[in-house]
Amino acid sequence: MLDIAIIGAGPAGLSAAITGVIRNKKVKVFGNPPSTSYIYKAERIDNYIGMLGVTGQEMMEQFTGHAKELGVEIQTAKVIEIFPMGQSYMLNVENEFIEAKTIILANGLIKTNVLEGENEFLGRGVSYCATCDGPLYRGKEVVVVGDSSHAEEDANYLAEVCEKVYYMPLYKEIEHLDERIEVLYARPKKIIGENVVSGIEHTEGFLEASGVFIIKESIPTSRLLNGLEMNGAAIKVNRMMETSLPGVFAAGDCTGKPFQVAKAVGEGNTAVLQAVSYLNALNRAENKQ
Amino acid sequence: MLDIAIIGAGPAGLSAAITGVIRNKKVKVFGNPPSTSYIYKAERIDNYIGMLGVTGQEMMEQFTGHAKELGVEIQTAKVIEIFPMGQSYMLNVENEFIEAKTIILANGLIKTNVLEGENEFLGRGVSYCATCDGPLYRGKEVVVVGDSSHAEEDANYLAEVCEKVYYMPLYKEIEHLDERIEVLYARPKKIIGENVVSGIEHTEGFLEASGVFIIKESIPTSRLLNGLEMNGAAIKVNRMMETSLPGVFAAGDCTGKPFQVAKAVGEGNTAVLQAVSYLNALNRAENKQ
Repeated sequence: MLDIAIIGAGPAGLSAAITGVIRNKKVKVFGNPPSTSYIYKAERIDNYIGMLGVTGQEMMEQFTGHAKELGVEIQTAKVIEIFPMGQSYMLNVENEFIEAKTIILANGLIKTNVLEGENEFLGRGVSYCATCDGPLYRGKEVVVVGDSSHAEEDANYLAEVCEKVYYMPLYKEIEHLDERIEVLYARPKKIIGENVVSGIEHTEGFLEASGVFIIKESIPTSRLLNGLEMNGAAIKVNRMMETSLPGVFAAGDCTGKPFQVAKAVGEGNTAVLQAVSYLNALNRAENKQ
Repeated sequence: MLDIAIIGAGPAGLSAAITGVIRNKKVKVFGNPPSTSYIYKAERIDNYIGMLGVTGQEMMEQFTGHAKELGVEIQTAKVIEIFPMGQSYMLNVENEFIEAKTIILANGLIKTNVLEGENEFLGRGVSYCATCDGPLYRGKEVVVVGDSSHAEEDANYLAEVCEKVYYMPLYKEIEHLDERIEVLYARPKKIIGENVVSGIEHTEGFLEASGVFIIKESIPTSRLLNGLEMNGAAIKVNRMMETSLPGVFAAGDCTGKPFQVAKAVGEGNTAVLQAVSYLNALNRAENKQ
Protein backbone atom coordinates (compact mmCIF):
# COMPACT_ATOMS: atom_id res chain seq x y z
CA MET A 1 0.00 0.00 0.00
CA LEU A 2 1.23 3.50 -0.82
CA ASP A 3 1.64 6.06 1.93
CA ILE A 4 1.03 8.93 -0.46
CA ALA A 5 -0.52 8.84 -3.93
CA ILE A 6 0.08 12.07 -5.81
CA ILE A 7 -2.26 12.88 -8.68
CA GLY A 8 -0.41 15.10 -11.12
CA ALA A 9 3.22 15.29 -12.25
CA GLY A 10 3.53 19.07 -12.57
CA PRO A 11 5.45 21.40 -10.24
CA ALA A 12 3.07 20.90 -7.27
CA GLY A 13 3.04 17.10 -7.54
CA LEU A 14 6.78 16.75 -8.03
CA SER A 15 7.55 19.20 -5.21
CA ALA A 16 5.33 17.14 -2.89
CA ALA A 17 6.94 13.91 -4.08
CA ILE A 18 10.55 14.87 -3.35
CA THR A 19 9.82 15.87 0.23
CA GLY A 20 7.67 12.75 0.70
CA VAL A 21 10.56 10.54 -0.43
CA ILE A 22 13.05 12.44 1.75
CA ARG A 23 10.70 11.84 4.68
CA ASN A 24 10.87 8.08 3.93
CA LYS A 25 7.30 7.65 2.80
CA LYS A 26 6.17 5.28 0.05
CA VAL A 27 5.19 7.76 -2.64
CA LYS A 28 3.99 7.40 -6.21
CA VAL A 29 3.14 10.10 -8.71
CA PHE A 30 0.49 9.52 -11.39
CA GLY A 31 0.44 11.94 -14.25
CA ASN A 32 0.31 12.82 -17.90
CA PRO A 33 3.60 13.06 -19.81
CA PRO A 34 5.46 16.30 -18.89
CA SER A 35 5.02 17.59 -22.45
CA THR A 36 1.26 17.95 -21.89
CA SER A 37 1.65 20.46 -19.05
CA TYR A 38 0.91 24.16 -19.60
CA ILE A 39 4.37 25.12 -18.37
CA TYR A 40 6.10 22.90 -20.89
CA LYS A 41 4.95 25.30 -23.59
CA ALA A 42 6.11 28.48 -21.79
CA GLU A 43 8.78 30.34 -23.75
CA ARG A 44 10.55 31.78 -20.74
CA ILE A 45 9.98 31.76 -16.98
CA ASP A 46 11.84 34.31 -14.88
CA ASN A 47 10.01 34.34 -11.59
CA TYR A 48 10.77 30.97 -10.02
CA ILE A 49 13.66 32.09 -7.88
CA GLY A 50 16.93 30.26 -8.43
CA MET A 51 16.19 29.43 -12.07
CA LEU A 52 16.51 32.52 -14.20
CA GLY A 53 15.55 32.66 -17.88
CA VAL A 54 14.62 29.03 -18.43
CA THR A 55 12.08 27.75 -20.92
CA GLY A 56 9.10 25.83 -19.61
CA GLN A 57 10.51 22.69 -21.15
CA GLU A 58 13.87 23.12 -19.41
CA MET A 59 12.11 23.75 -16.12
CA MET A 60 9.90 20.67 -16.37
CA GLU A 61 12.88 18.53 -17.39
CA GLN A 62 14.92 19.80 -14.45
CA PHE A 63 12.01 19.23 -12.05
CA THR A 64 11.41 15.71 -13.35
CA GLY A 65 15.13 14.93 -13.28
CA HIS A 66 15.41 16.17 -9.70
CA ALA A 67 12.51 13.95 -8.64
CA LYS A 68 13.86 10.87 -10.42
CA GLU A 69 17.34 11.45 -8.96
CA LEU A 70 15.79 11.24 -5.49
CA GLY A 71 14.01 8.01 -6.42
CA VAL A 72 10.50 9.34 -7.01
CA GLU A 73 8.40 6.85 -9.00
CA ILE A 74 6.34 8.49 -11.72
CA GLN A 75 3.70 6.42 -13.51
CA THR A 76 2.40 7.88 -16.74
CA ALA A 77 -1.21 6.88 -16.32
CA LYS A 78 -4.56 8.46 -15.67
CA VAL A 79 -6.32 8.10 -12.34
CA ILE A 80 -9.96 7.61 -13.29
CA GLU A 81 -11.58 7.58 -9.88
CA ILE A 82 -10.71 7.54 -6.19
CA PHE A 83 -12.90 5.70 -3.69
CA PRO A 84 -12.81 6.25 0.08
CA MET A 85 -12.21 2.96 1.97
CA GLY A 86 -12.41 3.96 5.63
CA GLN A 87 -8.78 4.53 6.68
CA SER A 88 -7.46 4.58 3.10
CA TYR A 89 -8.35 5.34 -0.51
CA MET A 90 -8.54 3.07 -3.57
CA LEU A 91 -7.39 4.48 -6.90
CA ASN A 92 -8.61 3.23 -10.23
CA VAL A 93 -5.55 3.80 -12.41
CA GLU A 94 -6.82 2.85 -15.88
CA ASN A 95 -8.32 -0.32 -14.32
CA GLU A 96 -5.33 -1.16 -12.14
CA PHE A 97 -6.42 -0.77 -8.50
CA ILE A 98 -3.94 0.81 -6.11
CA GLU A 99 -4.49 1.57 -2.43
CA ALA A 100 -3.03 4.59 -0.67
CA LYS A 101 -3.27 5.95 2.85
CA THR A 102 -3.27 9.55 1.72
CA ILE A 103 -3.89 11.46 -1.49
CA ILE A 104 -2.39 14.68 -2.76
CA LEU A 105 -4.43 16.19 -5.58
CA ALA A 106 -2.12 18.21 -7.81
CA ASN A 107 -4.05 17.77 -11.02
CA GLY A 108 -3.80 21.32 -12.23
CA LEU A 109 -6.24 23.54 -13.94
CA ILE A 110 -9.19 21.54 -15.19
CA LYS A 111 -11.29 22.66 -18.09
CA THR A 112 -14.62 21.90 -16.57
CA ASN A 113 -17.09 22.31 -19.38
CA VAL A 114 -19.34 19.31 -19.30
CA LEU A 115 -21.48 18.17 -22.21
CA GLU A 116 -25.22 18.15 -21.85
CA GLY A 117 -26.10 14.60 -20.84
CA GLU A 118 -22.54 13.79 -19.76
CA ASN A 119 -23.28 13.63 -16.04
CA GLU A 120 -26.65 11.98 -16.58
CA PHE A 121 -25.30 9.08 -18.66
CA LEU A 122 -21.93 8.56 -16.93
CA GLY A 123 -21.65 4.78 -16.42
CA ARG A 124 -24.62 4.21 -18.72
CA GLY A 125 -22.89 4.75 -22.03
CA VAL A 126 -20.61 7.65 -21.14
CA SER A 127 -17.07 6.69 -20.08
CA TYR A 128 -13.80 8.49 -19.32
CA CYS A 129 -11.60 5.41 -19.75
CA ALA A 130 -11.18 3.27 -22.86
CA THR A 131 -9.02 0.70 -21.06
CA CYS A 132 -11.61 0.31 -18.31
CA ASP A 133 -14.82 0.21 -20.30
CA GLY A 134 -13.74 -0.68 -23.87
CA PRO A 135 -14.55 -4.40 -23.47
CA LEU A 136 -18.18 -3.54 -22.64
CA TYR A 137 -18.57 -2.17 -26.18
CA ARG A 138 -17.25 -5.18 -28.07
CA GLY A 139 -18.92 -5.30 -31.48
CA LYS A 140 -20.72 -2.01 -30.94
CA GLU A 141 -20.46 1.51 -32.37
CA VAL A 142 -18.83 4.16 -30.22
CA VAL A 143 -17.80 7.82 -30.43
CA VAL A 144 -14.59 9.15 -28.92
CA VAL A 145 -14.39 12.85 -28.05
CA GLY A 146 -10.71 13.68 -27.58
CA ASP A 147 -9.17 16.95 -26.41
CA SER A 148 -5.56 16.15 -27.34
CA SER A 149 -3.59 13.72 -29.47
CA HIS A 150 -3.15 11.49 -26.41
CA ALA A 151 -6.80 10.52 -26.80
CA GLU A 152 -5.94 8.94 -30.15
CA GLU A 153 -4.30 6.00 -28.37
CA ASP A 154 -7.55 5.31 -26.56
CA ALA A 155 -9.46 5.53 -29.82
CA ASN A 156 -6.98 3.17 -31.52
CA TYR A 157 -7.47 0.61 -28.77
CA LEU A 158 -11.26 0.88 -29.12
CA ALA A 159 -10.90 0.32 -32.89
CA GLU A 160 -9.56 -3.13 -32.03
CA VAL A 161 -12.61 -4.19 -30.02
CA CYS A 162 -15.54 -2.19 -31.34
CA GLU A 163 -17.47 -2.60 -34.55
CA LYS A 164 -17.01 1.04 -35.50
CA VAL A 165 -15.25 4.02 -33.90
CA TYR A 166 -15.99 7.65 -34.70
CA TYR A 167 -13.52 10.28 -33.52
CA MET A 168 -14.38 13.90 -32.72
CA PRO A 169 -11.17 15.87 -32.11
CA LEU A 170 -11.43 19.04 -29.98
CA TYR A 171 -7.98 20.07 -31.25
CA LYS A 172 -6.34 20.77 -34.59
CA GLU A 173 -3.92 18.18 -35.84
CA ILE A 174 -4.54 14.48 -35.74
CA GLU A 175 -1.28 12.61 -35.21
CA HIS A 176 -1.53 8.84 -35.29
CA LEU A 177 -5.10 7.69 -35.59
CA ASP A 178 -5.86 4.12 -36.75
CA GLU A 179 -7.21 4.14 -40.29
CA ARG A 180 -10.28 2.11 -39.30
CA ILE A 181 -11.49 5.13 -37.36
CA GLU A 182 -13.79 7.68 -38.97
CA VAL A 183 -12.96 11.27 -38.06
CA LEU A 184 -15.85 13.66 -37.62
CA TYR A 185 -14.98 17.35 -37.69
CA ALA A 186 -17.83 18.65 -35.57
CA ARG A 187 -18.37 19.91 -32.05
CA PRO A 188 -20.31 17.62 -29.71
CA LYS A 189 -23.49 19.23 -28.40
CA LYS A 190 -25.56 16.79 -26.38
CA ILE A 191 -25.57 13.15 -25.43
CA ILE A 192 -28.87 11.52 -26.23
CA GLY A 193 -30.54 8.43 -24.78
CA GLU A 194 -33.26 7.08 -22.53
CA ASN A 195 -31.92 4.64 -19.97
CA VAL A 196 -28.67 4.28 -21.83
CA VAL A 197 -26.88 6.30 -24.48
CA SER A 198 -28.26 6.07 -28.00
CA GLY A 199 -26.09 8.69 -29.69
CA ILE A 200 -24.64 12.14 -29.76
CA GLU A 201 -25.96 15.36 -31.20
CA HIS A 202 -23.27 17.52 -32.80
CA THR A 203 -22.94 20.72 -34.79
CA GLU A 204 -23.31 18.82 -38.10
CA GLY A 205 -26.13 16.48 -37.15
CA PHE A 206 -26.69 13.34 -35.09
CA LEU A 207 -24.60 10.18 -34.74
CA GLU A 208 -25.97 6.89 -33.43
CA ALA A 209 -23.72 5.12 -30.93
CA SER A 210 -24.00 2.97 -27.81
CA GLY A 211 -20.94 4.45 -26.16
CA VAL A 212 -19.47 7.93 -25.85
CA PHE A 213 -15.87 8.05 -24.60
CA ILE A 214 -14.81 11.49 -23.39
CA ILE A 215 -11.03 11.37 -23.25
CA LYS A 216 -9.58 14.56 -21.83
CA GLU A 217 -6.20 15.36 -20.33
CA SER A 218 -7.81 15.51 -16.92
CA ILE A 219 -10.85 14.11 -15.21
CA PRO A 220 -13.04 16.79 -13.59
CA THR A 221 -12.12 16.80 -9.90
CA SER A 222 -15.71 16.39 -8.77
CA ARG A 223 -15.83 13.14 -10.79
CA LEU A 224 -12.43 12.00 -9.61
CA LEU A 225 -13.26 12.07 -5.93
CA ASN A 226 -16.84 12.31 -4.82
CA GLY A 227 -17.77 14.59 -1.92
CA LEU A 228 -14.78 16.91 -2.16
CA GLU A 229 -15.78 20.42 -1.18
CA MET A 230 -15.10 22.94 -3.95
CA ASN A 231 -14.79 26.70 -4.09
CA GLY A 232 -16.06 27.39 -7.58
CA ALA A 233 -13.67 25.54 -9.89
CA ALA A 234 -10.99 25.29 -7.18
CA ILE A 235 -10.62 22.63 -4.50
CA LYS A 236 -11.34 24.15 -1.10
CA VAL A 237 -8.27 23.99 1.14
CA ASN A 238 -7.05 25.59 4.33
CA ARG A 239 -3.56 27.02 4.95
CA MET A 240 -2.21 23.51 5.59
CA MET A 241 -3.57 22.34 2.23
CA GLU A 242 -6.13 20.04 3.85
CA THR A 243 -9.31 19.46 1.82
CA SER A 244 -12.72 18.60 3.26
CA LEU A 245 -11.85 14.87 3.22
CA PRO A 246 -9.50 13.32 5.83
CA GLY A 247 -6.16 12.25 4.38
CA VAL A 248 -6.77 14.18 1.15
CA PHE A 249 -4.63 17.24 0.46
CA ALA A 250 -4.40 19.49 -2.59
CA ALA A 251 -1.73 21.73 -4.10
CA GLY A 252 -1.05 23.88 -7.12
CA ASP A 253 -3.36 25.27 -9.76
CA CYS A 254 -6.22 22.98 -8.64
CA THR A 255 -6.55 25.02 -5.43
CA GLY A 256 -7.05 28.28 -7.32
CA LYS A 257 -5.18 31.47 -8.16
CA PRO A 258 -2.45 32.58 -8.61
CA PHE A 259 -1.52 30.07 -11.31
CA GLN A 260 2.23 30.22 -10.73
CA VAL A 261 5.07 27.70 -10.52
CA ALA A 262 6.36 29.10 -7.20
CA LYS A 263 2.94 28.92 -5.57
CA ALA A 264 2.44 25.36 -6.81
CA VAL A 265 5.86 24.23 -5.57
CA GLY A 266 5.27 25.81 -2.16
CA GLU A 267 1.82 24.28 -1.78
CA GLY A 268 3.12 20.84 -2.78
CA ASN A 269 5.71 21.14 -0.04
CA THR A 270 3.15 22.14 2.60
CA ALA A 271 0.66 19.48 1.46
CA VAL A 272 3.14 16.61 1.72
CA LEU A 273 4.39 17.69 5.14
CA GLN A 274 0.80 17.75 6.33
CA ALA A 275 0.28 14.29 4.80
CA VAL A 276 3.38 13.07 6.68
CA SER A 277 1.93 14.41 9.96
CA TYR A 278 -1.35 12.67 9.18
CA LEU A 279 0.44 9.37 8.45
CA ASN A 280 2.43 9.63 11.66
CA ALA A 281 -0.77 10.22 13.64
CA LEU A 282 -2.35 7.18 11.90
CA ASN A 283 0.66 5.06 12.90
CA ARG A 284 0.51 6.19 16.50
CA ALA A 285 -3.19 5.36 16.64
CA GLU A 286 -2.56 1.90 15.15
CA ASN A 287 0.24 1.18 17.61
CA LYS A 288 -2.01 2.03 20.53
CA GLN A 289 -4.60 -0.55 19.55
CA MET B 1 7.32 56.56 -2.99
CA LEU B 2 7.77 52.82 -3.21
CA ASP B 3 4.96 50.65 -4.51
CA ILE B 4 6.09 47.69 -2.43
CA ALA B 5 8.47 47.64 0.54
CA ILE B 6 9.62 44.12 1.34
CA ILE B 7 10.91 43.48 4.85
CA GLY B 8 13.32 40.56 4.69
CA ALA B 9 15.82 39.39 2.07
CA GLY B 10 15.36 35.65 2.50
CA PRO B 11 13.62 33.27 0.05
CA ALA B 12 10.13 34.73 0.66
CA GLY B 13 11.22 38.34 0.28
CA LEU B 14 13.35 37.75 -2.81
CA SER B 15 10.65 35.61 -4.45
CA ALA B 16 8.16 38.43 -3.90
CA ALA B 17 10.64 41.00 -5.19
CA ILE B 18 11.34 39.36 -8.55
CA THR B 19 7.67 39.08 -9.45
CA GLY B 20 7.06 42.63 -8.23
CA VAL B 21 9.80 43.93 -10.54
CA ILE B 22 8.55 41.84 -13.46
CA ARG B 23 5.12 43.38 -12.86
CA ASN B 24 6.73 46.86 -13.20
CA LYS B 25 6.26 47.95 -9.62
CA LYS B 26 8.73 50.08 -7.68
CA VAL B 27 10.07 47.55 -5.22
CA LYS B 28 12.74 47.66 -2.52
CA VAL B 29 13.92 44.90 -0.23
CA PHE B 30 15.23 45.70 3.26
CA GLY B 31 17.14 42.96 5.00
CA ASN B 32 20.07 41.62 6.92
CA PRO B 33 23.11 40.39 4.98
CA PRO B 34 22.34 36.96 3.38
CA SER B 35 24.95 35.32 5.63
CA THR B 36 22.75 35.90 8.67
CA SER B 37 19.84 33.81 7.37
CA TYR B 38 19.16 30.35 8.78
CA ILE B 39 19.37 28.78 5.34
CA TYR B 40 22.82 30.17 4.71
CA LYS B 41 24.14 27.75 7.30
CA ALA B 42 22.33 24.69 5.91
CA GLU B 43 24.77 22.01 4.75
CA ARG B 44 22.59 20.64 2.01
CA ILE B 45 19.07 21.32 0.73
CA ASP B 46 17.45 18.73 -1.52
CA ASN B 47 13.78 19.59 -1.46
CA TYR B 48 13.53 22.87 -3.35
CA ILE B 49 12.66 21.42 -6.72
CA GLY B 50 14.97 22.36 -9.56
CA MET B 51 18.03 22.81 -7.33
CA LEU B 52 19.31 19.45 -6.16
CA GLY B 53 22.05 19.02 -3.57
CA VAL B 54 22.97 22.65 -3.02
CA THR B 55 24.32 24.14 0.18
CA GLY B 56 22.34 26.85 1.90
CA GLN B 57 25.01 29.34 0.96
CA GLU B 58 24.87 28.38 -2.74
CA MET B 59 21.08 28.65 -2.66
CA MET B 60 21.06 32.09 -1.05
CA GLU B 61 23.73 33.33 -3.46
CA GLN B 62 21.76 32.03 -6.43
CA PHE B 63 18.54 33.60 -5.12
CA THR B 64 20.23 36.94 -4.48
CA GLY B 65 21.97 36.83 -7.86
CA HIS B 66 18.67 36.09 -9.62
CA ALA B 67 17.01 39.04 -7.89
CA LYS B 68 19.86 41.44 -8.67
CA GLU B 69 19.96 40.26 -12.29
CA LEU B 70 16.31 41.34 -12.62
CA GLY B 71 17.10 44.73 -11.07
CA VAL B 72 15.79 44.18 -7.56
CA GLU B 73 17.20 46.77 -5.14
CA ILE B 74 18.30 45.30 -1.84
CA GLN B 75 19.20 47.64 1.01
CA THR B 76 21.12 46.07 3.89
CA ALA B 77 19.41 47.91 6.70
CA LYS B 78 17.04 47.27 9.52
CA VAL B 79 13.46 48.49 9.44
CA ILE B 80 12.83 49.65 12.98
CA GLU B 81 9.16 50.52 12.79
CA ILE B 82 6.35 50.90 10.31
CA PHE B 83 3.62 53.55 10.77
CA PRO B 84 0.26 53.55 8.99
CA MET B 85 -0.34 56.84 7.12
CA GLY B 86 -3.86 56.46 5.72
CA GLN B 87 -3.34 55.22 2.14
CA SER B 88 0.35 54.36 2.67
CA TYR B 89 2.92 53.33 5.25
CA MET B 90 6.02 55.11 6.55
CA LEU B 91 9.10 53.00 7.32
CA ASN B 92 11.76 54.01 9.78
CA VAL B 93 14.85 52.45 8.22
CA GLU B 94 17.53 53.16 10.83
CA ASN B 95 16.26 56.76 10.96
CA GLU B 96 15.86 57.20 7.22
CA PHE B 97 12.13 57.59 6.52
CA ILE B 98 10.76 55.86 3.43
CA GLU B 99 7.14 55.77 2.28
CA ALA B 100 5.54 52.77 0.60
CA LYS B 101 2.05 52.03 -0.68
CA THR B 102 2.19 48.38 0.36
CA ILE B 103 4.28 46.25 2.70
CA ILE B 104 5.28 42.62 2.43
CA LEU B 105 6.50 41.24 5.73
CA ALA B 106 8.97 38.44 5.06
CA ASN B 107 11.04 38.87 8.18
CA GLY B 108 11.36 35.21 9.01
CA LEU B 109 11.27 33.38 12.27
CA ILE B 110 11.56 35.81 15.13
CA LYS B 111 12.91 34.74 18.47
CA THR B 112 10.29 36.45 20.55
CA ASN B 113 11.64 36.19 24.07
CA VAL B 114 11.34 39.60 25.56
CA LEU B 115 13.23 40.75 28.65
CA GLU B 116 11.31 41.67 31.74
CA GLY B 117 10.92 45.45 31.55
CA GLU B 118 11.70 45.58 27.80
CA ASN B 119 8.18 46.47 26.70
CA GLU B 120 7.61 48.72 29.70
CA PHE B 121 10.70 50.89 29.09
CA LEU B 122 10.76 50.88 25.29
CA GLY B 123 11.34 54.53 24.29
CA ARG B 124 12.20 55.42 27.89
CA GLY B 125 15.71 53.99 27.99
CA VAL B 126 15.21 50.83 25.96
CA SER B 127 16.03 51.10 22.24
CA TYR B 128 16.32 48.75 19.26
CA CYS B 129 18.37 51.15 17.12
CA ALA B 130 21.77 52.65 17.93
CA THR B 131 21.73 54.90 14.86
CA CYS B 132 18.34 56.29 15.82
CA ASP B 133 18.70 56.79 19.52
CA GLY B 134 22.48 56.85 20.14
CA PRO B 135 22.69 60.68 20.16
CA LEU B 136 20.22 60.79 23.06
CA TYR B 137 22.80 59.05 25.24
CA ARG B 138 25.75 61.35 24.57
CA GLY B 139 28.02 61.33 27.62
CA LYS B 140 25.99 58.64 29.37
CA GLU B 141 26.50 54.99 30.25
CA VAL B 142 24.68 52.38 28.17
CA VAL B 143 24.44 48.61 27.85
CA VAL B 144 24.18 46.83 24.50
CA VAL B 145 22.62 43.36 24.42
CA GLY B 146 23.60 41.79 21.08
CA ASP B 147 22.47 38.46 19.63
CA SER B 148 25.02 38.29 16.80
CA SER B 149 28.30 39.87 15.77
CA HIS B 150 26.35 42.37 13.65
CA ALA B 151 25.36 44.07 16.90
CA GLU B 152 29.03 44.90 17.52
CA GLU B 153 28.88 47.63 14.86
CA ASP B 154 26.07 49.30 16.76
CA ALA B 155 28.05 49.03 19.99
CA ASN B 156 31.14 50.49 18.30
CA TYR B 157 29.15 53.47 17.11
CA LEU B 158 27.78 54.02 20.62
CA ALA B 159 31.34 53.90 22.00
CA GLU B 160 32.00 57.04 19.96
CA VAL B 161 29.19 59.06 21.54
CA CYS B 162 28.61 57.59 24.99
CA GLU B 163 30.68 57.93 28.14
CA LYS B 164 30.83 54.18 28.65
CA VAL B 165 29.48 51.16 26.75
CA TYR B 166 29.00 47.71 28.25
CA TYR B 167 28.38 44.79 25.88
CA MET B 168 26.47 41.61 26.74
CA PRO B 169 26.82 39.10 23.89
CA LEU B 170 24.11 36.43 23.56
CA TYR B 171 26.44 34.46 21.24
CA LYS B 172 29.88 32.92 21.50
CA GLU B 173 32.63 34.68 19.59
CA ILE B 174 33.16 38.40 19.60
CA GLU B 175 34.57 39.55 16.27
CA HIS B 176 35.42 43.23 16.02
CA LEU B 177 34.42 45.09 19.14
CA ASP B 178 35.96 48.50 19.88
CA GLU B 179 38.46 48.24 22.72
CA ARG B 180 36.78 51.03 24.67
CA ILE B 181 33.82 48.70 25.23
CA GLU B 182 33.65 46.51 28.31
CA VAL B 183 32.35 43.01 27.63
CA LEU B 184 30.16 41.44 30.29
CA TYR B 185 29.71 37.68 30.00
CA ALA B 186 26.35 37.40 31.71
CA ARG B 187 22.73 36.86 30.71
CA PRO B 188 20.40 39.85 31.00
CA LYS B 189 17.50 39.20 33.37
CA LYS B 190 15.46 42.35 33.93
CA ILE B 191 15.47 46.00 33.00
CA ILE B 192 15.17 48.19 36.09
CA GLY B 193 13.92 51.76 36.46
CA GLU B 194 11.13 54.00 37.59
CA ASN B 195 10.08 56.49 34.92
CA VAL B 196 13.17 55.78 32.88
CA VAL B 197 15.76 53.00 32.82
CA SER B 198 18.27 53.03 35.65
CA GLY B 199 20.06 49.77 34.91
CA ILE B 200 19.90 46.08 34.10
CA GLU B 201 19.81 43.07 36.34
CA HIS B 202 21.85 40.13 35.01
CA THR B 203 22.96 36.67 36.09
CA GLU B 204 26.12 38.07 37.70
CA GLY B 205 24.65 41.12 39.45
CA PHE B 206 23.37 44.61 38.54
CA LEU B 207 24.71 47.21 36.14
CA GLU B 208 23.78 50.88 36.28
CA ALA B 209 23.00 52.46 32.90
CA SER B 210 20.69 55.08 31.42
CA GLY B 211 20.21 53.21 28.15
CA VAL B 212 19.72 49.57 27.19
CA PHE B 213 20.14 48.86 23.48
CA ILE B 214 18.72 45.49 22.45
CA ILE B 215 20.25 44.76 19.06
CA LYS B 216 18.84 41.57 17.56
CA GLU B 217 18.79 40.26 14.00
CA SER B 218 15.07 41.02 13.87
CA ILE B 219 12.62 43.32 15.54
CA PRO B 220 9.64 41.48 17.08
CA THR B 221 6.79 41.78 14.57
CA SER B 222 4.35 43.18 17.12
CA ARG B 223 6.85 46.05 17.71
CA LEU B 224 7.54 46.53 14.02
CA LEU B 225 3.96 47.16 13.02
CA ASN B 226 1.39 47.95 15.64
CA GLY B 227 -2.07 46.35 15.43
CA LEU B 228 -1.13 43.41 13.24
CA GLU B 229 -3.24 40.39 14.13
CA MET B 230 -1.12 37.43 15.20
CA ASN B 231 -1.75 33.72 15.52
CA GLY B 232 0.59 32.86 18.37
CA ALA B 233 4.06 33.77 17.12
CA ALA B 234 2.92 33.76 13.46
CA ILE B 235 1.37 36.62 11.52
CA LYS B 236 -2.25 35.80 10.77
CA VAL B 237 -2.83 35.56 7.00
CA ASN B 238 -5.46 34.20 4.65
CA ARG B 239 -4.82 32.10 1.52
CA MET B 240 -3.97 35.26 -0.45
CA MET B 241 -1.35 36.22 2.18
CA GLU B 242 -3.36 39.25 3.31
CA THR B 243 -2.83 40.27 6.94
CA SER B 244 -5.35 42.08 9.13
CA LEU B 245 -4.06 45.46 7.85
CA PRO B 246 -4.97 46.80 4.38
CA GLY B 247 -2.00 46.83 2.00
CA VAL B 248 0.09 44.67 4.33
CA PHE B 249 0.91 41.13 3.21
CA ALA B 250 3.13 38.47 4.76
CA ALA B 251 5.08 35.48 3.45
CA GLY B 252 7.50 32.81 4.59
CA ASP B 253 8.48 31.64 8.05
CA CYS B 254 6.82 34.66 9.68
CA THR B 255 3.40 33.24 8.73
CA GLY B 256 4.07 29.94 10.53
CA LYS B 257 4.87 26.33 9.72
CA PRO B 258 6.19 24.57 7.73
CA PHE B 259 9.53 26.39 7.84
CA GLN B 260 10.62 25.47 4.33
CA VAL B 261 12.23 27.25 1.41
CA ALA B 262 9.58 26.07 -1.08
CA LYS B 263 6.71 27.26 1.09
CA ALA B 264 8.42 30.64 1.62
CA VAL B 265 9.06 31.11 -2.11
CA GLY B 266 5.46 30.20 -2.96
CA GLU B 267 4.00 32.54 -0.37
CA GLY B 268 6.25 35.38 -1.51
CA ASN B 269 4.91 34.90 -5.00
CA THR B 270 1.27 34.90 -3.89
CA ALA B 271 1.80 37.88 -1.55
CA VAL B 272 3.31 40.10 -4.23
CA LEU B 273 0.63 39.27 -6.80
CA GLN B 274 -1.98 40.21 -4.21
CA ALA B 275 -0.04 43.44 -3.52
CA VAL B 276 -0.07 44.15 -7.27
CA SER B 277 -3.86 43.68 -7.36
CA TYR B 278 -4.20 45.99 -4.37
CA LEU B 279 -2.03 48.65 -6.06
CA ASN B 280 -4.02 48.41 -9.26
CA ALA B 281 -7.25 48.87 -7.32
CA LEU B 282 -5.75 51.91 -5.56
CA ASN B 283 -4.81 53.39 -8.94
CA ARG B 284 -8.28 52.85 -10.35
CA ALA B 285 -9.81 54.51 -7.28
CA GLU B 286 -7.43 57.49 -7.61
CA ASN B 287 -8.19 57.91 -11.32
CA LYS B 288 -11.90 58.04 -10.61
CA GLN B 289 -11.55 60.99 -8.25
